[in-house]
Amino acid sequence: MAKRILRVDMTKLEANFEDFPADFVALGGRALTSTIVAKEVDPLCHPLGAYNKLVFAPGLVTGSKAPTSGRISVGGKSPLTGGIKEANAGTNFAQKLGRMRIAAIVVEGKHKGDDYYLLKVTNDGTEIIKANKWSNKGLYDVYKELYKEFGDKVSISGVGIAAEIMGAASGICFNDPEGLPSRYAGRGGLGAVMASKGLKFIVVDDTGAPGVEILNKEAFNMGVKKLTNALTSHDVTKPGGALNSFGTGVLVNIINEAGGLPQRNFSSGQDDRSEKVSGEVKAEEIKKRGGVRPHFCSPGCVIQCSEVWTKPGGKDPVGVLEYESVWALGPNCSIYDLDVIGELNRACNDLGLDTIEAGGLIGVAMEGGLTEFGDEKGALKLFDEIKKKTPTGRILANGTAFTAQAFGVTRVPVVKGQSLPAYDPRAIKGIGVTYATTPQGADHTAGYAIATEIMGVGGTADPKDTNKSDLSRNLQLATAAIDASGYCLFIAFAVLDIPEGLVGVVDTLNGVLGTSLTVNDVAGYGQQIIDTERAFNKAAGFTEKDDRLPEFFLKEPLPPHNEVFNVSDEELDKVWGA
Amino acid sequence: MAKRILRVDMTKLEANFEDFPADFVALGGRALTSTIVAKEVDPLCHPLGAYNKLVFAPGLVTGSKAPTSGRISVGGKSPLTGGIKEANAGTNFAQKLGRMRIAAIVVEGKHKGDDYYLLKVTNDGTEIIKANKWSNKGLYDVYKELYKEFGDKVSISGVGIAAEIMGAASGICFNDPEGLPSRYAGRGGLGAVMASKGLKFIVVDDTGAPGVEILNKEAFNMGVKKLTNALTSHDVTKPGGALNSFGTGVLVNIINEAGGLPQRNFSSGQDDRSEKVSGEVKAEEIKKRGGVRPHFCSPGCVIQCSEVWTKPGGKDPVGVLEYESVWALGPNCSIYDLDVIGELNRACNDLGLDTIEAGGLIGVAMEGGLTEFGDEKGALKLFDEIKKKTPTGRILANGTAFTAQAFGVTRVPVVKGQSLPAYDPRAIKGIGVTYATTPQGADHTAGYAIATEIMGVGGTADPKDTNKSDLSRNLQLATAAIDASGYCLFIAFAVLDIPEGLVGVVDTLNGVLGTSLTVNDVAGYGQQIIDTERAFNKAAGFTEKDDRLPEFFLKEPLPPHNEVFNVSDEELDKVWGA
Repeated sequence: MAKRILRVDMTKLEANFEDFPADFVALGGRALTSTIVAKEVDPLCHPLGAYNKLVFAPGLVTGSKAPTSGRISVGGKSPLTGGIKEANAGTNFAQKLGRMRIAAIVVEGKHKGDDYYLLKVTNDGTEIIKANKWSNKGLYDVYKELYKEFGDKVSISGVGIAAEIMGAASGICFNDPEGLPSRYAGRGGLGAVMASKGLKFIVVDDTGAPGVEILNKEAFNMGVKKLTNALTSHDVTKPGGALNSFGTGVLVNIINEAGGLPQRNFSSGQDDRSEKVSGEVKAEEIKKRGGVRPHFCSPGCVIQCSEVWTKPGGKDPVGVLEYESVWALGPNCSIYDLDVIGELNRACNDLGLDTIEAGGLIGVAMEGGLTEFGDEKGALKLFDEIKKKTPTGRILANGTAFTAQAFGVTRVPVVKGQSLPAYDPRAIKGIGVTYATTPQGADHTAGYAIATEIMGVGGTADPKDTNKSDLSRNLQLATAAIDASGYCLFIAFAVLDIPEGLVGVVDTLNGVLGTSLTVNDVAGYGQQIIDTERAFNKAAGFTEKDDRLPEFFLKEPLPPHNEVFNVSDEELDKVWGA
Repeated sequence: MAKRILRVDMTKLEANFEDFPADFVALGGRALTSTIVAKEVDPLCHPLGAYNKLVFAPGLVTGSKAPTSGRISVGGKSPLTGGIKEANAGTNFAQKLGRMRIAAIVVEGKHKGDDYYLLKVTNDGTEIIKANKWSNKGLYDVYKELYKEFGDKVSISGVGIAAEIMGAASGICFNDPEGLPSRYAGRGGLGAVMASKGLKFIVVDDTGAPGVEILNKEAFNMGVKKLTNALTSHDVTKPGGALNSFGTGVLVNIINEAGGLPQRNFSSGQDDRSEKVSGEVKAEEIKKRGGVRPHFCSPGCVIQCSEVWTKPGGKDPVGVLEYESVWALGPNCSIYDLDVIGELNRACNDLGLDTIEAGGLIGVAMEGGLTEFGDEKGALKLFDEIKKKTPTGRILANGTAFTAQAFGVTRVPVVKGQSLPAYDPRAIKGIGVTYATTPQGADHTAGYAIATEIMGVGGTADPKDTNKSDLSRNLQLATAAIDASGYCLFIAFAVLDIPEGLVGVVDTLNGVLGTSLTVNDVAGYGQQIIDTERAFNKAAGFTEKDDRLPEFFLKEPLPPHNEVFNVSDEELDKVWGA
């Protein structure tokens, strides 16, 4: 069986398999979603209209035995940024598609009525069924019901109430290994795109699937070995290493120490209370409560940075509390209580909200007087507004910039309309260059300069040095390639420092594709993706003026170091040679 | 006394007169506001932050005896479009500034506290006083109180509750001759810019003012005579002519007949019920009720297209019901009752809302299910939400595009974020070219192709002919020049057809300035203004992709003629040679 594309026409309620075009053969994940979106979507279309498309694509090695490669990319025109979007997640949903040799699911058109639908995909075919009974409910309950209906072994992608109201802060949810709705392709409002078409869920059952085709098994197996060696020997990624022991939350204390952990809607970069929500404290607490740590988001992960956070006594599992989520829903809102953050994160998962955007919008809502900074109950109540689909909820569900405009807040931490992640660019300049210049809108994963600026991975760089265009560009190119491969971005920590690991990555790609790529091809591969995305954005009306941080980062010094973002426009434009 | 600029620093609460720069001497109205904004405002600043500025400038001949010249331009970076904005109004406020030789009031900075202020400007100086007691109230009551406080002879500019909540649909209000808050520089959300600075009102008393300086009285008087002759002889502008008899509402039947009067959020271009809200019916009704018609917006107008609409029995005067307002709050919302429209228009004036944006946002709110099309009470209730500053009110006050996003509506009639006026561009292509290409966002007054396409003024053109770049450009250039002169745009009806009238306009400008301009200089003068505005917009990130109509005008045929907007992108780009 050759690779194929599953095209879902929501206007006609039809799903059909198509041959995978020969010229797409080297494309997977982000390379494939961005290529299809750029080829098939009018950059000036309304993102929630009939002419946008939503594309799901597992990475090239996803579903194989390649370690830590269970990623799926989701792409479309973003209702949040107005540009092209790729958001990705780690989930066995991705691996099932890979094993079924479904290179992409392309959802197009728009159902005319008010009904919601569920797409079921098995190795033998597809079915589109009414999903109204699973709508207007929290995803924790709905995922339980869906697993009851479709069996324990399926994987599920879905969107929640935030998407039902077309919220530009809504993400695409995937199950974790426990079946919790906690793994998100969260950014850019793609949840609303899915809901706008009338599609609520995709359920995948890969029984009888042939598995990922591997054209050169020798190369593949050699690559797996080299990459596994690198991952298991690097301090950040190895068993018992930083990520495995404390999860992404290991960064809380480090970034707070660096003065770059934004507090109170980016009003300060440091607060002693941050330690209370650190990865170290969280890991200890999970152990006490009988949660799960370490844990993987998808089978076959060597790093295993994930976890299952619960209430005391191991009750009411939430899923992972990522560093970004803890920060967004915590320090950014002056909240320093992991139990409150856990409940806020649960509310995000339950409603289908991107946690970063959610923390950003609560921050500006607090600044706008909807509730006070640090008001834990007030923050939780804001999510109730979304759940009840009230006018306030409709404001909030549309994200940070929208909420700021509704409530007259002028300190708006967004780039291209998308809320900034957990590193203040005034304290750490390189990540600011990535926020500004990635085609994706403010996104730390697009070129994670923190690795070099703070963690000393892939070399070192002074966080305050403003010459960061080369660092950001190189990371953005490598990241785009990784996002196409299906590997988790976290393999970069190892392969940036251990050259043999990177060779292993390329070996596995050659194994799957039957090609003879070398590590020298990686940057060019990434550049093609970025070029495709930037061309789409240009045709959507983006210019270098969109590659800028908002006013207040340039004007308002950040305590404790009292720096502004002083990277010049020229340096920003050097990233892509604009 | 030479001309001067009044600079108002709202951070320091100081107002100081400055010399008028020698190189600004030929600039007035829109030429001056756009020049100052382009020179002093960072195009990437937050429009409601401390770095935006708000500029008031009367036209070059405003305050003199030149007929129909009581216009004031207001400029700044628009919170609605994100680009440069000039909105203008006819009011004796403009004439008083002209007579006081105040070329511009530049409001800058931002008051840090929650207080609102009033700026009083007399011939002898200025005063900034607390205005909290006049806040959070409807402008009809407030203007009465202000006239009581400052005397009947002052003129007043102010912003209402819609601006207090930073609504991007809020306009700048000026008094009409009765002291009613009914003359608006409405478009683009400049009301919110004024409120964001802490400034609520400007009160002007021109007692003892020297009057407009006229360097060549002979030329000036000759010009006044020629222009007056033209205005009093053209069928559209003469006493007893179309505008004088029926006001701008004379267009209702004409545009409905042409199939271009948008109904139900631009779902059809014609409805028989439109006749019930025509200018003819309205004029008759005003006569019956004992309202005022004809009437001028500012003294010295020859055309006198204005009126005072009242409730039956001459009660509760509203002010003028313009064609655009009647359409926006009427047929666009399936409302065909002048009394309801009168109350909706009163609500707009009372809250400080642009009526066009208000009608647009009610239309999308109706489409989004907030209330039904044609629900008159439902429409009025929406304004109560703004008055009460509820979350729904905060959504609505931010305009059509914002309301559409909040309620998941994808048929969004805006260009550059600004709501379309009362002519459907699918039925009348030339006005669509203006909507798309003016730097101001969808604005009929920027290049009123209707004059030629429908009224046969300045030649004739088939509304369905798609070659309209020349027509739109020429009109946009002439309009920019007129917006600088201080003349009402409606003189164009006469001077486009009567060459001697245009000579008269130039004569009066030469009279005031002591120059020897000819009619051949008009287009170049206009081009300079447009160039300035387009340069600002480009620096704010605008491209030719912003010079497009939204998706549904291109995809959805408009009954009854079932045309789409089929002007090519190439034709649109030919307007400015992009």
